[in-house]
Amino acid sequence: MKKVLVHNIGLLCTPVGSHVHAGAQQAEIQSIPQACVLAEDGVITYCGPASGLPQGAAEGARRIDAGGCLVTPGLIDAHTHLVFGGWRQHEIPLKLAGAGYLDILRSGGGILSTVKHTRQESEEQLTQKAWAFLDEMLTLGVTSCEIKSGYGLDLETELKQLRVIRELAQSHPMDIASTFLGAHAVPEEYKDNSDGYVDYLIDTMLPAVAEQKLARYCDVFCETGVFDVPQSRRVLEAGKALGLLPRIHADEIDAIGGAVLAGEVGAVSAEHLIATDEEGMQAMAKAGVIADLLPATSFYLDKTFAPARRMVELGIPVVIASDFNPGSCPSLNLPFAMNLGLLRYKLKPEEVLNAVTINAACSVGMEDRLGTLEAGKQADLVIWDAPDLEMILYRFGSNLCRTVLKKGEVVACHEGKE
Amino acid sequence: MKKVLVHNIGLLCTPVGSHVHAGAQQAEIQSIPQACVLAEDGVITYCGPASGLPQGAAEGARRIDAGGCLVTPGLIDAHTHLVFGGWRQHEIPLKLAGAGYLDILRSGGGILSTVKHTRQESEEQLTQKAWAFLDEMLTLGVTSCEIKSGYGLDLETELKQLRVIRELAQSHPMDIASTFLGAHAVPEEYKDNSDGYVDYLIDTMLPAVAEQKLARYCDVFCETGVFDVPQSRRVLEAGKALGLLPRIHADEIDAIGGAVLAGEVGAVSAEHLIATDEEGMQAMAKAGVIADLLPATSFYLDKTFAPARRMVELGIPVVIASDFNPGSCPSLNLPFAMNLGLLRYKLKPEEVLNAVTINAACSVGMEDRLGTLEAGKQADLVIWDAPDLEMILYRFGSNLCRTVLKKGEVVACHEGKE
Repeated sequence: MKKVLVHNIGLLCTPVGSHVHAGAQQAEIQSIPQACVLAEDGVITYCGPASGLPQGAAEGARRIDAGGCLVTPGLIDAHTHLVFGGWRQHEIPLKLAGAGYLDILRSGGGILSTVKHTRQESEEQLTQKAWAFLDEMLTLGVTSCEIKSGYGLDLETELKQLRVIRELAQSHPMDIASTFLGAHAVPEEYKDNSDGYVDYLIDTMLPAVAEQKLARYCDVFCETGVFDVPQSRRVLEAGKALGLLPRIHADEIDAIGGAVLAGEVGAVSAEHLIATDEEGMQAMAKAGVIADLLPATSFYLDKTFAPARRMVELGIPVVIASDFNPGSCPSLNLPFAMNLGLLRYKLKPEEVLNAVTINAACSVGMEDRLGTLEAGKQADLVIWDAPDLEMILYRFGSNLCRTVLKKGEVVACHEGKE
Repeated sequence: MKKVLVHNIGLLCTPVGSHVHAGAQQAEIQSIPQACVLAEDGVITYCGPASGLPQGAAEGARRIDAGGCLVTPGLIDAHTHLVFGGWRQHEIPLKLAGAGYLDILRSGGGILSTVKHTRQESEEQLTQKAWAFLDEMLTLGVTSCEIKSGYGLDLETELKQLRVIRELAQSHPMDIASTFLGAHAVPEEYKDNSDGYVDYLIDTMLPAVAEQKLARYCDVFCETGVFDVPQSRRVLEAGKALGLLPRIHADEIDAIGGAVLAGEVGAVSAEHLIATDEEGMQAMAKAGVIADLLPATSFYLDKTFAPARRMVELGIPVVIASDFNPGSCPSLNLPFAMNLGLLRYKLKPEEVLNAVTINAACSVGMEDRLGTLEAGKQADLVIWDAPDLEMILYRFGSNLCRTVLKKGEVVACHEGKE
């Protein structure tokens, strides 16, 4: 048995309890001073005040000194598009000249240029690139994530992307949830025939994805100029019939009814929600849909920010995720998105922590083993160069991770950095 | 003789020429593909196409392979307050409740709480803390900076801060410019007598600073509720009479005439300028005052951004700096400020590079040896995990520095990171 004891924790902050629908958004964060965490074979066996550790329990354990610092659960990034070919820094001059997302899309650039590169690159190239992103995310305290396909937009490339995600899930230390997002954009082949693409997706792509068990979730970009509400409903219902749980890119640019649809189809989550309205939020609250908010995208695109405080008021569980992708948010820095959770959403530090731990775990279906530090959960945790949660949210731009543990193993270490 | 050759540079981007007043803001960036840089004893002896390196010149040199990546001059952070005691993360709840900078100041918090801690901490404590910041800045590609006093607000502590800055300048690898900012706030001892504090500053503090040669610059926070224009003028003129070059915190919150004053007293730079108006900018343009802009402060405080494009149009040399301080900008991440230079100021990538290299060097009086990569200049440079400038400004939230050289020595290295 492999034992590890994280001791000399100045303050341990963690949500408690596993079920977001029982109100994790409003759950109090448990704050334990002078704490320790004991893990055996990657699973927590004790988490609490150091004085309460049973005599002899830590015998033979590897000891990690937290230096009196803050410890939280490992962060979970519940919305990424991190398997892609190419980059899009060359759109900068277009953007400086004032072109918007849909302008660039309509001109054949934007997502379609990423599709071109993703189709061209090999499975090995895509895996290697994504692997490096995951390694970098670990250094920032992110120990689990979701990854979407959606840069193939044809059967072959969507399956290739999903196989890359499976390979990462099997080989990389991170826990990874896989989402099929064939309905991310209308490919050039179906330029004036989006219904035809939806037919193809439902008749050909979805069955193959389901048969090969390549995704847990089915997602759709429900937006003006992309897929409308009836098309989005068809995609999500077809996915459900094949056992894929629905999630939806909703109300990012226009409130065309995506959040309402999320409620109607019983989506696990609705994501973006920058432009959502009261009707959409009421539908989400009623149906228990999780709101995956992506503030770094609002930041990068200089848009308004989703109405996070209103969601909290309505009892909608709020998640903060990175949205890492080469177009609208070329940043994998989830702690920076947390800074924005405070600075722009005006969420309290405890709400921000919930949003990247237990609520995010629920959004990606891993709440049984992730998202809190409690006996029985995986020993995924971050030791921060900080005395409290406030410090992390305050010192934006510095990576305050000191040591990151995944299943009880040190996966990133910056000790002695400062 | 210590030789180093940085070879296999895919693209070298640098401003050329040393004089901002000769138009560096508008200077074209020289972009050299397949370049190399040779340095001897920390000074560049060749910078140009690899094919142009004189035969035998690199013999015996340590060779650093840039891996086909981008190289730029080391970044210069021309406005920081990085010597301070304590932190201010505990103001977060106040800010969430809507309190503004001047509200917090008036309640005895804010800067006055930093003053309290800076007075309490020893010279050694302050030096150690600041040293770690400088080390972290090096890892982000920042190889030189300016540091201001201003958290003492009494003779003893201002001199203590300035001695810490001198110690850092003498012992740390960075080049550091020292600024006396005794007029940063009105201390509690002079609560209702700001004129009395200005008298004390001019009669007692400034002569001591000048006599001990502890600062090159004299700065003042010219703002509603802090120091008005006549007081600011007195401080700057008194500094000038003692040989301290004027710089000024101007028009951050209100346009009360700080930028105009900058022009009148011939300030090297006016800093912040969020609220500045056409009159102020015209005065600066006429007098050749450099604009030190601090976009991360606008970001953190969720304010508007300084009119940088208008300044460029008027021929004002624009600098981007971090403003690192524990109150209004607890971030030392200059590359993030550069991201904001693109995303919010809408500066072109070349203008952003100028703003953190040659223009910044001019702002801190180091343009004779820093700010460009040319024969005769110091070999301060950054090898980036990026093919071009656009990539750095695009991938916000990731530290793309691969290797950082200061005077030809490797001071930070993340090779193999990705």
